[in-house]
Amino acid sequence: MALHAVEFPPATHDFQTFLGQAEPNMQVVLHGYIGQRADLSKKLSFVRLTDPTMKYSIQVVAFGKNDATEKLKSLNAHSPVAVRGKVQKKKGKNTDAGDKPAEEKWELALEDVHPLNDFPKDIIMTPETVFAPEHRYLQLRSDAELRDALQFRAEVRNECKKELENCQPPFVEIETPLLFKSTPEGAREFLVPTRRAGLAYALPQSPQQYKQILMASGIPRYFQFARCFRDEDLRADRQPEFTQLDLEMSFATGEDVMRTIEGVVRRLWANLMQDPAPEGPFRRRSYQEVMAKYGSDKPDTRYGMELMRLDHLLPADLVMKISPLENPIVEAFKLESQNNDPAATLKFIGQFLDSPAGAPFNNNPDGGPGVFVYNGKQPLCGLQPFGFEAAEQIEELLEPDHGDLIIIQARPRAPFAGGATPVGDLRRALHGHAVSAGFSPSPTGFDFMWVVDFPLFSPSSDSEPGQGGAAGFSSTHHPFTAPKTAADVDMLLADPTKVVADHYDLVVNGVELGGGSRRIHDAAVQEFILRDILQMKPERLVDFEHLLDALRAGCPPHAGLALGFDRLVAVLLGKESVRDVIAFPKTGKGGDDAMVRAPSPMTEEALETYHLRLRK
Amino acid sequence: MALHAVEFPPATHDFQTFLGQAEPNMQVVLHGYIGQRADLSKKLSFVRLTDPTMKYSIQVVAFGKNDATEKLKSLNAHSPVAVRGKVQKKKGKNTDAGDKPAEEKWELALEDVHPLNDFPKDIIMTPETVFAPEHRYLQLRSDAELRDALQFRAEVRNECKKELENCQPPFVEIETPLLFKSTPEGAREFLVPTRRAGLAYALPQSPQQYKQILMASGIPRYFQFARCFRDEDLRADRQPEFTQLDLEMSFATGEDVMRTIEGVVRRLWANLMQDPAPEGPFRRRSYQEVMAKYGSDKPDTRYGMELMRLDHLLPADLVMKISPLENPIVEAFKLESQNNDPAATLKFIGQFLDSPAGAPFNNNPDGGPGVFVYNGKQPLCGLQPFGFEAAEQIEELLEPDHGDLIIIQARPRAPFAGGATPVGDLRRALHGHAVSAGFSPSPTGFDFMWVVDFPLFSPSSDSEPGQGGAAGFSSTHHPFTAPKTAADVDMLLADPTKVVADHYDLVVNGVELGGGSRRIHDAAVQEFILRDILQMKPERLVDFEHLLDALRAGCPPHAGLALGFDRLVAVLLGKESVRDVIAFPKTGKGGDDAMVRAPSPMTEEALETYHLRLRK
Repeated sequence: MALHAVEFPPATHDFQTFLGQAEPNMQVVLHGYIGQRADLSKKLSFVRLTDPTMKYSIQVVAFGKNDATEKLKSLNAHSPVAVRGKVQKKKGKNTDAGDKPAEEKWELALEDVHPLNDFPKDIIMTPETVFAPEHRYLQLRSDAELRDALQFRAEVRNECKKELENCQPPFVEIETPLLFKSTPEGAREFLVPTRRAGLAYALPQSPQQYKQILMASGIPRYFQFARCFRDEDLRADRQPEFTQLDLEMSFATGEDVMRTIEGVVRRLWANLMQDPAPEGPFRRRSYQEVMAKYGSDKPDTRYGMELMRLDHLLPADLVMKISPLENPIVEAFKLESQNNDPAATLKFIGQFLDSPAGAPFNNNPDGGPGVFVYNGKQPLCGLQPFGFEAAEQIEELLEPDHGDLIIIQARPRAPFAGGATPVGDLRRALHGHAVSAGFSPSPTGFDFMWVVDFPLFSPSSDSEPGQGGAAGFSSTHHPFTAPKTAADVDMLLADPTKVVADHYDLVVNGVELGGGSRRIHDAAVQEFILRDILQMKPERLVDFEHLLDALRAGCPPHAGLALGFDRLVAVLLGKESVRDVIAFPKTGKGGDDAMVRAPSPMTEEALETYHLRLRK
Repeated sequence: MALHAVEFPPATHDFQTFLGQAEPNMQVVLHGYIGQRADLSKKLSFVRLTDPTMKYSIQVVAFGKNDATEKLKSLNAHSPVAVRGKVQKKKGKNTDAGDKPAEEKWELALEDVHPLNDFPKDIIMTPETVFAPEHRYLQLRSDAELRDALQFRAEVRNECKKELENCQPPFVEIETPLLFKSTPEGAREFLVPTRRAGLAYALPQSPQQYKQILMASGIPRYFQFARCFRDEDLRADRQPEFTQLDLEMSFATGEDVMRTIEGVVRRLWANLMQDPAPEGPFRRRSYQEVMAKYGSDKPDTRYGMELMRLDHLLPADLVMKISPLENPIVEAFKLESQNNDPAATLKFIGQFLDSPAGAPFNNNPDGGPGVFVYNGKQPLCGLQPFGFEAAEQIEELLEPDHGDLIIIQARPRAPFAGGATPVGDLRRALHGHAVSAGFSPSPTGFDFMWVVDFPLFSPSSDSEPGQGGAAGFSSTHHPFTAPKTAADVDMLLADPTKVVADHYDLVVNGVELGGGSRRIHDAAVQEFILRDILQMKPERLVDFEHLLDALRAGCPPHAGLALGFDRLVAVLLGKESVRDVIAFPKTGKGGDDAMVRAPSPMTEEALETYHLRLRK
């Protein structure tokens, strides 16, 4: 049986301490990974020893024919070792220069090397190697940026924590259970069967109910880095488990929460980023406004391309050409050309629409995008299809320059619902494509914004279970969100779909960093919304009894928020995917952990333990 | 529809700030809970307003007949309110004394009160009320000690974190997945079925495998406050989910880990406790030694009562009287009497053995305890049954005083296995009973100890699934624990049950605060132990492939530990139960959350979603 390092010499120093204290003839034992060996002669070899943090390294010199040299020569690069040696000044030019880093000033004359494990010869590992997800450990080991991201993530966490704990009164970090109960809050929950036949816990989609109960429990301010779970189809960048910075304040409104979060953001940007966040409170925009202006409830506002309503201007025959809809709303936006070259613009938009990214827009059942390139050399500058009068007004509205792209898009005449309109998605996709194709400059900086005044309810969707009520609509966020004003409360009976929620989303650069709301703290109102507005069945209503009881026991008003922590770290680091800031992300479409191969088959024995059987 | 506080005036101050800045005629709005109202006349009422943190309060005076007074009078005690008023000096004697706390110097002349919710009249809430577990929010709200425990817990967390982050090189907080995979590590795991028929995640019993993979990934030092899950029968004080402070170090041995943890403990005691922890490294005792001396692998060593072997001294007929066993081991211990009164001792032990606590010891199939009271007034001082010679030697061994209790107990002649012997349990139970009955003084202080040199394997038990191998024994802790020395590695083949593990438990005052080990970092050794020693089936062995692959990729040696965080906080606060330091503990025998009523029935729809059916 091959055997390594049951006993091995302890390091006399960590590298950082060693490099600060090194002097000639010092005897040291250092731990680390050896690099590629260079054999200068039969009697002289060099190898770099990198420390366990992989932040420092030092040159090791093996001279002469001896056991230590032989052992060193038997080791593969990247193998962990303990090296015993004597410190000496590094030879060569400029090694005496005072500004030389300590790593370049000193070297170690090898006296002994203790192999601690073998790095296999058949694994090729360079800083550039991209490993398959099942070899995440190799990716982490070879990719300093990924390891640094995990360390940065810990720093982000600490900064958030410090800000919240320095508030007056301070937020207190409190853990809430993960073995919770299935309640119809909105998302699909993972179940955890128990050994009592038919009974299961559910993993929480957020600590929402527990934190509200904390507010009813005399805890004035709570926060937690909470693991949350949603059993949803893995979209581009969602994980079935994720971390949120979750907080709640009693005797508070959304104003208090937004102020608190602005403090957190400001601290993060001040302490961890190159430039601080902009001064003053973040601006606020209503859901209706951002949907009209950007076709998205989390718009990137840094690159213009604002939407304009054109339907009142357009000739009927043009509308018929771009959409099968009766009396649609038509919106337009402009994408500026950098070099005022209509041909290049045409080529760019053609490429986009022919690409897979363009397909969903071409296939929009409400009609594809209408494409125009503003061209001073053409009749009506290329806006001829609009007719003279409309073309003039469009010029006034969009102020296009030679070579600019104008897109028009129809949609049904209906109130905004959901997170984006197709033209909003088109705006985003087209801009992303323009940046990567070099057609548009990459936007810079961070543009923070609160999106507020969401509708309290939205039409039920097939993909989200919602609250399972019979009303035909569901809570836009969750059923605990308070109506915004007394007038909104009155509107509950008259027309629930018109009720505005006291909900706020923090948006930066097209990313929703988090969202929160003032909560309903009046048991009667909460019960009324669940029972009479959402028309939840009595057997599901009873699942919320604990919350109603807690509210009834004199619960103070309260409000809170959750920041998507994975996403926040990704934004701070400028990463596209949260996978780059999670040690072991799920990677597959089905939420697979490719490395450990989870999920895995349930054994018959396990099924029996939980009184379960597979359906055929 | 009753409706409260959709809009309410913001507080002008939090209480702490207000009390620091108060001056006459200041106009303020304060949020808080009102107390019991005292009506001194029809025109004059007093009520105490307690702030949202429930740490400060101030007197509110309502004078005259007006709307504000009427509103105040309509409110029940404990209701949350916003109070507008004018600051004035509190009347009465001694209010000018400089050392008066600000809360007693000032009062608020009521100008308006804004009710924010009602506290129901039918709930009786005093600081002493004990509420049923389903009303945990009322317990939290009425019980300042419980709320303070949660805040203290957050402080403990911060101190641990600071200590680890200040190490050189620092530990980095890294989150590992909770949707893991079922592997035969030792405890029974909760499963989380997925929508892919037959496939499930498992909730981790600890982050053990992920943290070892981090060590293979070039992360030198990791920590995490990790939620862990075990589907075991709820014993006295176990929770199906619990938190551990989990850490791991690469290029490290158990020595490094123990030193690190001693630093954490020292910092906690220095910063949060009245007296610092004792100086110097914590003493170490082997498993064999503490089992022999205390009959427990986590003994409370503060009160003596050490076990002595007597079997070589005892006459055969006495042995036959106390045990049906052939050639048993017999151990004895002494419980000192405080007042040297043999009658009182007899009464005490009689009560104990007749109580439910005594029953398991009386019913020990290896024989009940033999009870002797040392009594100078009796022949051979009450040790007559031992015979003259043995009695003399027992006197020399135990040095009893008049009135002291001597207990002897037989057990089979076999090596130690498991956490305690019956006589060890008896020692602990008897001492506990003696303290609560006032027979013995309550032990004080903290006696820290590392228990080391555990056997690597223990006989398989029915209650723990172990690794499900065919060897008849299982890993004592988990199958990743390294053998202690090269000689132990050699012993693997000769006699696995004799192999000593490089495992260490931190024990204080009879409580195991945590445990850890050096891990096997050599893939061949790990595979050999899983396959050849534990005799795991190939289909289970494959579940560890990810770990073996990671070790194989040049993983450095590593060691780590996990502190039971709930338990640690309970010990620091002197609480008997971890439930007193968890916001929402599971309380029922079956792991029930009585408040939210979890676990709850799975709906037919949910079962169908996960391709499951209940067994009949």
